[in-house]
Amino acid sequence: MTLIRSWVDTANDPSCPFPLNNLPYGVFSTSGTQPRCGVAIGDKVLDVAAMEKAGLLRLADTPLLASAVWNPLMDAGAVIWDKLRSQLMGHLAQGADTQDQVEPYQHPLSGVTMHMPFAVTEYTDFYAGRNHAQNVGSIFRGNDNALPVNWLHIPIGYNGRASSVVVSGTGVRRPWGQLKSPDQEAPVFQPCRRFDLELEMGAIVGKPSTGPVTVAEADDMIFGYVLLNDWSARDIQAWEYVPLGPFQAKATATTISPWIVTKAALAPFRATTPEREKPLLAYLEEPRPMLYNIDLRVELAPQGGTATEIARTNYTQMYYSAAQQLAHHTTSGCPMRVGDLLGSGTISGTTKDSRGSMLELSWSGKEPITLDGGETRSFLEDGDTLTLKGTCHGDGYSIGFGDCSGRILPALTDPYAR
Amino acid sequence: MTLIRSWVDTANDPSCPFPLNNLPYGVFSTSGTQPRCGVAIGDKVLDVAAMEKAGLLRLADTPLLASAVWNPLMDAGAVIWDKLRSQLMGHLAQGADTQDQVEPYQHPLSGVTMHMPFAVTEYTDFYAGRNHAQNVGSIFRGNDNALPVNWLHIPIGYNGRASSVVVSGTGVRRPWGQLKSPDQEAPVFQPCRRFDLELEMGAIVGKPSTGPVTVAEADDMIFGYVLLNDWSARDIQAWEYVPLGPFQAKATATTISPWIVTKAALAPFRATTPEREKPLLAYLEEPRPMLYNIDLRVELAPQGGTATEIARTNYTQMYYSAAQQLAHHTTSGCPMRVGDLLGSGTISGTTKDSRGSMLELSWSGKEPITLDGGETRSFLEDGDTLTLKGTCHGDGYSIGFGDCSGRILPALTDPYAR
Repeated sequence: MTLIRSWVDTANDPSCPFPLNNLPYGVFSTSGTQPRCGVAIGDKVLDVAAMEKAGLLRLADTPLLASAVWNPLMDAGAVIWDKLRSQLMGHLAQGADTQDQVEPYQHPLSGVTMHMPFAVTEYTDFYAGRNHAQNVGSIFRGNDNALPVNWLHIPIGYNGRASSVVVSGTGVRRPWGQLKSPDQEAPVFQPCRRFDLELEMGAIVGKPSTGPVTVAEADDMIFGYVLLNDWSARDIQAWEYVPLGPFQAKATATTISPWIVTKAALAPFRATTPEREKPLLAYLEEPRPMLYNIDLRVELAPQGGTATEIARTNYTQMYYSAAQQLAHHTTSGCPMRVGDLLGSGTISGTTKDSRGSMLELSWSGKEPITLDGGETRSFLEDGDTLTLKGTCHGDGYSIGFGDCSGRILPALTDPYAR
Repeated sequence: MTLIRSWVDTANDPSCPFPLNNLPYGVFSTSGTQPRCGVAIGDKVLDVAAMEKAGLLRLADTPLLASAVWNPLMDAGAVIWDKLRSQLMGHLAQGADTQDQVEPYQHPLSGVTMHMPFAVTEYTDFYAGRNHAQNVGSIFRGNDNALPVNWLHIPIGYNGRASSVVVSGTGVRRPWGQLKSPDQEAPVFQPCRRFDLELEMGAIVGKPSTGPVTVAEADDMIFGYVLLNDWSARDIQAWEYVPLGPFQAKATATTISPWIVTKAALAPFRATTPEREKPLLAYLEEPRPMLYNIDLRVELAPQGGTATEIARTNYTQMYYSAAQQLAHHTTSGCPMRVGDLLGSGTISGTTKDSRGSMLELSWSGKEPITLDGGETRSFLEDGDTLTLKGTCHGDGYSIGFGDCSGRILPALTDPYAR
């Protein structure tokens, strides 16, 4: 697919993350105004809530965009999703006859504050990256027992905590927690010492279900994708996770990008999952390509320092697609709802510089990495800013998600001081 | 505490679960009307939504009970919780001068339909019963390694699926799932064969938090308690739960009782947790009694047959209270919200007839139990109705939750047929 030209000049720059091909959905505010639905185009955000109010967008009998979250639009169904995209295309295309009417609804992206783009109903995180599972397994159980016996059959997942999902730019406070290193006799309650990031993609459920759904149906239920950083307290996790899985280690925060990139925008970048190492049960078979070719990068900037790219990989490294994960999620009859968020699991490539967590990059602290300024890192330090970036490279255009960024704030001195 | 007498005669019967001392909160409808907030008293339900509208209950400037869920009342805070209870006491006490005004708002309990009493924001399930953990550990890992090494230090918990929580009376469909028995070479996708119940109490969070809270603060955050049955697919669980915990095995349904019994009603029954086997870290120490003396029973009625009591135990068998669980839940900074539901974990006593799951009662199928009619059970069969009952025995009065009941519906023949 090639660039679709817009009368918003900056949107036609091949390196701009927000061309007319993209049209990602976010929630923004300008100084002194309420958060509302907006769409990024070039270096602008379009106030689509106001456009709908003015009759420039006609979607349904009741307003869908006069909201501080995109859930009402998602809830309206896929026909309305298409309607919005097509009306936006019509208004923003080069030569559109409504250009004069639409222009006043633009705000410079540089001057807006971004908010959570949707209300997270429930949050599930998976463990579906082949290289990540192999790396983590090797670190903890040795190379021979690295992969759990069910891993090649099930997209392993666990329920996370929706209340902890925050938008890019939110500070992330180093957590306290109960932990015990193998050499300690008894556990202690102290600030986390092995705080980590996890490079993931998040898929957003836009259509509910009440019983098991096929992989094809699951793909249709997905509204769009965000970048996702599942902050992880490795020392808390190590002590708590047997037998019922991670709990407080993953509950401090999960950061998502400010922009939801829709399935329609990503369509030209569809890619297949890697070859199966063992045949999947029929209910998990992928009837068409459901991963996406998204170039992913992680940058780490120490306090007051410049950013170093510490990892670069691609979403196609996943063994299971979000549609496969969602289909598995419904096998028990588990109802899925609009606004459910599915984390892909950490995305790591095969090389050392493509690993999506500090745990892997520093091999559990045994091989600290060196940043451009000379500092080294095993895990994250207070003041570090972590930024995930995602890009689809089209023919003469790019698709981006906006930075997914968070800065580590020091642990509270006394978490119970009031 | 003794019975507080009401002009609703049936509420004064010592065996009635809904005396004036109780005043539990539910959501009901009568034929052709919308679900709304109600309070049980004797053999009646009081339409408190209508009473508030009529000015008989004065709580806040805006209506709190004109809702199909109790969340707005919870959200209003503990001062309003007390206000409602005290106004209801005033209206319903023997000799109340508003008796004539209140009488028209009564509906016979026998003629109403009960609905979910609150919207479940997020659902967490714990594993905090000492005997249950010992039993399950012995079954799967042998007596010597029964208790995980962290168990006496952490109220072990995992996030469950809020969308799957249903009210008593809802049919529970036997799930399909991916499973593999040790003698099978590859996993299969089939209906669950080891479907189970779990006898639990549920605690409802009524006050939000944004950082770590103490156990005392956590106790103050709890609005009330329900009976809870965490239906569990043991064969699915066995195959999926390593390394990230139960997922689809616990996502089919969790049934709660129709009535929320408030902390105020339970206050006379407060009890301490058992003696610690190892000292707890300070953040988990219980400053006052936070368990409750609640007699718990499980009944199983086969299709067309009569009910057999298969287990009887008490909530005081828990090693950790809901307040301790909630305090631990916030250590990472995990935000808690109004409507969060915490399952206690399965409650089992020390004797064979006090075990809160079929897994334990039949010792993983090795010792099937015999029902009164002569049938045997290792796990649950289609058509079985499981009922949890909870009672606090006061001085001349009882406190109940209403039955927490669910019937097993057969698995779908083809879960993907449309």
